[in-house]
Amino acid sequence: MWSKCSRGCSTSSRLIFQIGNSASLATSPEIAGEPTGPCIKTSVPGPKTKQLLCELSKLQQAGSTEIFINYDKSIGNYLVDADENTYLDTYTQIATMPLGYNHPELLQVFRNEHDLKCLVNRPALGVYPGEDWPQRMNHIADAIAPYGLRHLNTMMCGACSNENAFKHAFMAYRRKVRGDDNFTEEEKQSCVLNKPPGSPNLAIMSFLHGFHGRTIGTLSTTRSKYIQKIDIPAFDWPMANFPQYLYPLEEHEECNRVEDYRCLASVEELFEKWCKKGIPVAGVIVEPIQSEGGDNHASPTFFRKLQAICKRNNAALIMDEVQTGGGPTGKFWCHEYFDMESPPDIVTFSKKLQLGGYFFSDDMMVNQPFRTFNTWMGDPGKVILLEKIIDIIVRDQLLQNVRLTGDYLLKQLQCMEKEFSPIIHSTRGRGTFIAITAETPEKRDEMIKRLKSKGVICGGAHPQTLRLRPTLLFSKNHADIFLDKLNEVLKDIKKA
Amino acid sequence: MWSKCSRGCSTSSRLIFQIGNSASLATSPEIAGEPTGPCIKTSVPGPKTKQLLCELSKLQQAGSTEIFINYDKSIGNYLVDADENTYLDTYTQIATMPLGYNHPELLQVFRNEHDLKCLVNRPALGVYPGEDWPQRMNHIADAIAPYGLRHLNTMMCGACSNENAFKHAFMAYRRKVRGDDNFTEEEKQSCVLNKPPGSPNLAIMSFLHGFHGRTIGTLSTTRSKYIQKIDIPAFDWPMANFPQYLYPLEEHEECNRVEDYRCLASVEELFEKWCKKGIPVAGVIVEPIQSEGGDNHASPTFFRKLQAICKRNNAALIMDEVQTGGGPTGKFWCHEYFDMESPPDIVTFSKKLQLGGYFFSDDMMVNQPFRTFNTWMGDPGKVILLEKIIDIIVRDQLLQNVRLTGDYLLKQLQCMEKEFSPIIHSTRGRGTFIAITAETPEKRDEMIKRLKSKGVICGGAHPQTLRLRPTLLFSKNHADIFLDKLNEVLKDIKKA
Repeated sequence: MWSKCSRGCSTSSRLIFQIGNSASLATSPEIAGEPTGPCIKTSVPGPKTKQLLCELSKLQQAGSTEIFINYDKSIGNYLVDADENTYLDTYTQIATMPLGYNHPELLQVFRNEHDLKCLVNRPALGVYPGEDWPQRMNHIADAIAPYGLRHLNTMMCGACSNENAFKHAFMAYRRKVRGDDNFTEEEKQSCVLNKPPGSPNLAIMSFLHGFHGRTIGTLSTTRSKYIQKIDIPAFDWPMANFPQYLYPLEEHEECNRVEDYRCLASVEELFEKWCKKGIPVAGVIVEPIQSEGGDNHASPTFFRKLQAICKRNNAALIMDEVQTGGGPTGKFWCHEYFDMESPPDIVTFSKKLQLGGYFFSDDMMVNQPFRTFNTWMGDPGKVILLEKIIDIIVRDQLLQNVRLTGDYLLKQLQCMEKEFSPIIHSTRGRGTFIAITAETPEKRDEMIKRLKSKGVICGGAHPQTLRLRPTLLFSKNHADIFLDKLNEVLKDIKKA
Repeated sequence: MWSKCSRGCSTSSRLIFQIGNSASLATSPEIAGEPTGPCIKTSVPGPKTKQLLCELSKLQQAGSTEIFINYDKSIGNYLVDADENTYLDTYTQIATMPLGYNHPELLQVFRNEHDLKCLVNRPALGVYPGEDWPQRMNHIADAIAPYGLRHLNTMMCGACSNENAFKHAFMAYRRKVRGDDNFTEEEKQSCVLNKPPGSPNLAIMSFLHGFHGRTIGTLSTTRSKYIQKIDIPAFDWPMANFPQYLYPLEEHEECNRVEDYRCLASVEELFEKWCKKGIPVAGVIVEPIQSEGGDNHASPTFFRKLQAICKRNNAALIMDEVQTGGGPTGKFWCHEYFDMESPPDIVTFSKKLQLGGYFFSDDMMVNQPFRTFNTWMGDPGKVILLEKIIDIIVRDQLLQNVRLTGDYLLKQLQCMEKEFSPIIHSTRGRGTFIAITAETPEKRDEMIKRLKSKGVICGGAHPQTLRLRPTLLFSKNHADIFLDKLNEVLKDIKKA
């Protein structure tokens, strides 16, 4: 058993960022029918998973498939696989399950005849929306719109949301240059040929280790792993440096401040360089915490200064909250921590919000129809689930649960880090959006593998990060199970 | 009333393409509760639609919104709007509703507890699929895989399917050039910087008036309307000519054959030109019938020769069946009409199939995981609907219904075209995938508007096409209603 750390670390272990109100909850959220812990009955992966993988591999490249799941039996924070192994899931389908598996209220949603019909009669939302659509959209915007951003477009997934955010940035930039949206005949004709001035030379700036999607436009801004990009043509767009901090933050304030300035200087330099190249930067896309790239944090100061640079250069600031949005950091949007002078121009979302989309400012509004259009423009079936999820987050004070659990988990991990140095280090996080770094990529892989064989599923990230993306219902007792298993694994690795 | 044409036109009016077995069905498919015809009670758009549009316009650019729908009351081929107007819908949510509204069997699907749980517990399919996933995928591949293409990836929408098809084409091309998938260190490092050799200069060729999506990669191949492309950067990719036939085809065989050769010559020329530019063409994307671009047909000979050119140039042939797939042409895949020497390398789909995806050949298989990966990789909730739709198409012989209704409709329209020349001309189609061309874009707009005010919804396409995309349940009695209303509208326009 990991002996819980209740003293010593508590004051020094808090992230220097403001964590918000963490007053204690009366009770942890309860999930009826959840097992009391993981239970592994076979080798992992088990024989049934291996057999199913053979079957699937005939149809497609299935090398990324880890286990096949019995979604009838999975419940709350626990996944049950095809071999009847039960796992505590801290990765939740790549951070997409806010309320875990088989939440009883989500299972009730489509028993409502009207909602079922919304799901089955899927409209082309941009042309023939349901008569309840404006009300649903307003309900969502009222509940979750980032401060200062009232406009909302829905999409299907995160990549598509970022693709359309780029389009808004390009259109807004060209509108500023042109002074209006009265296109010339030359623009209209040249764009069909993919040539300027209709198809202008414009860029989106992104950051080293950033991840924004794998469609070809977003892939030109994704800078995490080569396997995602190799052999695919890309735009000549600039890549700035993203802070690589030393943790814990409060012990490295000066050093990390210098790192902020190094990275901001690279942003300024690239704005100038690309302008001289004749490919001005129309927008900058950034994650509030780089996720796929290794859970890299940046300070509120970094984001505030980045916004100022964007404003000076007439470029849109696009905050990619695809992974951070929906509450895992303890606030609904992670950028709320940054106390920015004004809202980002666009905030994109997906994952925990079940569908994609983006909130945007008045400046980013498009004046003509059919410029950011597609057949479905999202999916009411997912919006109905999202509405229920938001209601439950508010009613059950789940953001507070995330902050409490996250505070606890972070402190315990910081103590554990001391015991197991140098095997793990750099514990960091907001809410339960927490990561540690392993000594080497191989040790990280070993940790994830051993944790899985003990019944705990975690995620990896570039290059040697272990990341947690639990449900918003993840509470102290789940955290303790994770900590115990991690303690066992680290002891084994230390011995080996 | 339009007096039906039962003689004269019947032999000369058939498309010269083979139509398949059109033996008569015993009965038309019945839809319980369908009204007997449209019923318009208010001006169109009605007061409630106008009020809802004001509300939605505060949130987003809603200029494309035509009417707000009551999806509880809509049934079969009929839409009911917020003002209680009932329309015969021949456009079906931009060609996405194969079985119309509130099909009783689709409404039953999620009453099955297991299927409901598949919907609500949405997995990251590339990592943690459900244990029934290989079986579901095999069921679908067995039922609908295009001849010769057994591999299948699922996606969320048509654009994403085409984006990933391009990636397969690029990877396959680079593998041929390199001889294997052993990437060099230089390739691995340069691709993160968006530079060759890791991010190679490669192109996808497309055709004038083609439409393949609005994400930034696919938008570089879309060549239909400027409003979709203007202000968005694009790749320097080539655009070939697509046949612009004279109709009816059997009266213009020689002339259209010359047109085929003109267009194929442009394809060959562009392969050579882009190769000299240092941006070799890795793939060609083409629709079996250009849809958004105006329902432009091309002959089987054109497609067979296009495939031969692709093969000679080591480029993948990507058949974009996003709009034609799923039965509207009277075959499940439109390219089945072309009797091609071998299957296309990739066939992409979406719309009527409820989600996106693509079938592909052995040559297009990717050898490493995480190269065509994303968070969700489709949606089991949509696959469950698709499985039921396929079962109903087969059981109720709906492709045969489409061919019968289509034959009838085409003949009647060809007669009507003679009566109302030159207001309409160039009647063309396969199955019920039928279009006519109006004398001017303004007259086409007027036709669509007047039809709507009489209770019939149709689609427009570039530049003066009126297109029909009815459900697969659309039968002779629905066709007669459409023909009557069109006759009234054309008489009014002729008088005006």
